Amino acid sequence: MSDRNRVLRLSRYKNAVLRLKSLNFVKVFSDNLADATGVTASQVRKDFSIFGISGNRRGGYNVDDLLGQLNKVLGKDKLQKLIIVGVGNIGKALLNYPGFSKSEIKIVAGFDIDHTKFAPNAEIPILPLDELTNYVKKNRIEIGIIAVPDFAAEQVFGVMAEAGIKGVFNFSPIRLPERAGIVVNNLDLETELENLIYFVNCGSGNI
Amino acid sequence: MSDRNRVLRLSRYKNAVLRLKSLNFVKVFSDNLADATGVTASQVRKDFSIFGISGNRRGGYNVDDLLGQLNKVLGKDKLQKLIIVGVGNIGKALLNYPGFSKSEIKIVAGFDIDHTKFAPNAEIPILPLDELTNYVKKNRIEIGIIAVPDFAAEQVFGVMAEAGIKGVFNFSPIRLPERAGIVVNNLDLETELENLIYFVNCGSGNI
Repeated sequence: MSDRNRVLRLSRYKNAVLRLKSLNFVKVFSDNLADATGVTASQVRKDFSIFGISGNRRGGYNVDDLLGQLNKVLGKDKLQKLIIVGVGNIGKALLNYPGFSKSEIKIVAGFDIDHTKFAPNAEIPILPLDELTNYVKKNRIEIGIIAVPDFAAEQVFGVMAEAGIKGVFNFSPIRLPERAGIVVNNLDLETELENLIYFVNCGSGNI
Repeated sequence: MSDRNRVLRLSRYKNAVLRLKSLNFVKVFSDNLADATGVTASQVRKDFSIFGISGNRRGGYNVDDLLGQLNKVLGKDKLQKLIIVGVGNIGKALLNYPGFSKSEIKIVAGFDIDHTKFAPNAEIPILPLDELTNYVKKNRIEIGIIAVPDFAAEQVFGVMAEAGIKGVFNFSPIRLPERAGIVVNNLDLETELENLIYFVNCGSGNI
């Protein structure tokens, strides 16, 4: 869990650096990144040191150099191609999500079982689920997003696993079982929202 | 953090019970809930005991009774009305998200600054952001979702805070600062996805 949080922070630092770069920053300091991400400066430096990210503490970090190092750790020195299964409301929103492109994340194809949604010639083609295995193998896709209703999630997970997908981002409300060799990130919006409501009702602070 | 995880689990148990109820289950056992949510049965019983949820361990839990107890703990014995700011792709997907209604969560209005999106007479009205404060006060709304681009997030957060919103579900990639009396759940899709990619590249298991 602490590993996961550390990587999440690293990703946030990277996004903060990207924003600062767009403001023409040439240098950033751990304090800048701390302010932008809501942690302490010593936490920033500790995270950097754990991942072997180097820089001059007093003189700050060179923006381009730091970005290169962060991207390398995050495996983002190459474009990451993803597929999505389920082109309903959530699926469509993700297909059009502008945040991904600046992070070198690109959804390259969508799959569905509803033939009215097929669009094989679109910029991001929407294909029949039957074609997933071939597509994934041919294009060496490693990451898949599941955005189907609960009753279909586990079946789609099986199809992805057979096809050789290595990481699954699951938006369905079903918690997918562990499966050897596959990393799953379950993100249940309903559960997250209920969690927020609970802490509001308790009168707690940030969660 | 362990508190947050415990509440997330509670929400998952509740969703599992709902599903089992739709399969005409009258009784459930801690083992059933453990299987459906990927934890151990003793974890289920421990969570229940911490929140004072009672039942007969050997005889199982009565589904309706358990649902009532879980809903009460989760503050879901009443309909929770939410508003959303930002009616772009993500905002629209959330407005149409079918999972919320069965959880007694209802988005009752959307707000935007783009007048082409206004639809004051729609079933879920889309209103100018200027009207948020009045709407929130009049309808006693406590929870708001932020689904605006990064540059607008903090301003929208300020508007919500002034209006008396107590809990914010933030889909923008900006991590909102802590603010007294407001619970924030930051959910950055890009960061979550990058995190998944990192662990795939490492060859780790579930995260």
